[in-house]
Amino acid sequence: MSLLVVGSMAFDSIRSPFGEVEKVVGGSATYFSLAASYLAPVRLVSVVGADFPPEVIRMLGSRSIDTRGLTIAEGRTFHWKGFYEYDLNTAHTVTTELNVFRDFAPVLPEEYRDTPYVFLGNIAPSLQLDILRQVRRPKLIALDTMNYWIESSPGPLREVIEKVDILMVNEGEIRMLTGEYNLVKAARMVIGWGPGRVVIKRGEYGVLNLSDSTMFAAPAYPLETIFDPTGAGDSFAGGFMGYLAGRAGKDLVDNDFRLATMYGSAIASFTVEAFSTERLQNLTPEDISERLGSFLTLTEFRV
Amino acid sequence: MSLLVVGSMAFDSIRSPFGEVEKVVGGSATYFSLAASYLAPVRLVSVVGADFPPEVIRMLGSRSIDTRGLTIAEGRTFHWKGFYEYDLNTAHTVTTELNVFRDFAPVLPEEYRDTPYVFLGNIAPSLQLDILRQVRRPKLIALDTMNYWIESSPGPLREVIEKVDILMVNEGEIRMLTGEYNLVKAARMVIGWGPGRVVIKRGEYGVLNLSDSTMFAAPAYPLETIFDPTGAGDSFAGGFMGYLAGRAGKDLVDNDFRLATMYGSAIASFTVEAFSTERLQNLTPEDISERLGSFLTLTEFRV
Repeated sequence: MSLLVVGSMAFDSIRSPFGEVEKVVGGSATYFSLAASYLAPVRLVSVVGADFPPEVIRMLGSRSIDTRGLTIAEGRTFHWKGFYEYDLNTAHTVTTELNVFRDFAPVLPEEYRDTPYVFLGNIAPSLQLDILRQVRRPKLIALDTMNYWIESSPGPLREVIEKVDILMVNEGEIRMLTGEYNLVKAARMVIGWGPGRVVIKRGEYGVLNLSDSTMFAAPAYPLETIFDPTGAGDSFAGGFMGYLAGRAGKDLVDNDFRLATMYGSAIASFTVEAFSTERLQNLTPEDISERLGSFLTLTEFRV
Repeated sequence: MSLLVVGSMAFDSIRSPFGEVEKVVGGSATYFSLAASYLAPVRLVSVVGADFPPEVIRMLGSRSIDTRGLTIAEGRTFHWKGFYEYDLNTAHTVTTELNVFRDFAPVLPEEYRDTPYVFLGNIAPSLQLDILRQVRRPKLIALDTMNYWIESSPGPLREVIEKVDILMVNEGEIRMLTGEYNLVKAARMVIGWGPGRVVIKRGEYGVLNLSDSTMFAAPAYPLETIFDPTGAGDSFAGGFMGYLAGRAGKDLVDNDFRLATMYGSAIASFTVEAFSTERLQNLTPEDISERLGSFLTLTEFRV
């Protein structure tokens, strides 16, 4: 079944200990869509400027990604410039040029409004609420956010959190959001607000996936080569939601959320092996299922 | 089969966001011995001062812990004073009073020299080498160390690393030891020096266990209540080595090292639930096997 994603598309300029790139294609919706497209049809809602390469849009469209919801606006594409030190868990921002993203007011094409799976990427909570007003009875909604919105827009953020099924954030974000340092307690607090599930992204340490009655912990894959962590969290989210949407409406049981976590982790583990979407956009189904097998070997033990 | 441990016994004075304790029983060999004693007979080599409570020594002796190698010296017991902030992964030292530990020169009782499993706790590498000269053909030797020895005693440390089977350190330590930030590469480097296996402790993020051909990742148990992380690493090591020693000489296969990691993780997860050894010394075999079952539920997924 289809999966709607709303989020940013961007140019990224990145320096890491392993190299430097200028204005390569990035953005949360880009990574998310590519990752999810291996598992389910995606409907993309985003905005780029006239400077965005048409061949990238064609590449997205040539996969199972519907780009009718992508606006090409007058002006320049959102541009993020940042760097990583050896600790690849922390992105240091140099500049953020919002450009056309500043006036992003997503309107869903009519054909998108019945999409059963919805991912609200990291944008203003008021826009996330706007999207929810435009979709009709979705089956499952997941939400990403960040420190900036937690601080600047707590009211609308709380309102949108109460309406979603899954909150997907990193460790620092859930601590800031709840004022609670302990992750289990913080997750329980969020679950008390409405979402049935909280997925906590911990970068190179993997993922915690908690519901009111279950806990699942997945490591990140220990890689010898990590070039660029940009997009890892969004690729994880894409793989996670793509797996669930790809279940084609079957009732979701506990193992589905575990396996969704592993698909997300497997796909994200490829993203970081190269700059930009280079590795992510060139995967085969075999690559993904092999990496999934490697994760099984990485984590299994017999008592 | 028996398991020899050499390391510190201490008084700890600890402040954490959850309380404060003065001169409670601690020390790496104390935590290690108690943890391992649930799984195998332990032979303890350490030193305390005349001020160390005799009832604690009797408590150790009443379990499967042989205390003939424990010296009670004139003077005062090693005393560590420190604190934790909300980030319980980082211990901040206020003072370290070595006291009787300053002149620790372990001599193994004759009855200890044939012990098949050996754990060289975090003491001067020259003393660790001394211990290795005193044991006869052990089956398996594991080694712990810390930043202080990596900086101050690199020659003897490298010498002892080359003689052991397992190096057990934390993330920061293996990075400092190898000058390599990537953990997989750092582990391969150490394996090239001699040990067949490297166990990397990551605190609340769990453990990575790498050999030349296998990788195993275990999360830490996500607890709602963590009072005091002191001794978690040593309890992990005790559970890990205790499980291997408890295999009674059977050939160790890959799953044994995985299960050893899980026994270590399970026992360590109890240690942090209370100050000092309070929780650790009051476990039942059922507590441990239940926690092991919880770890299985925490990590398993079906593809």
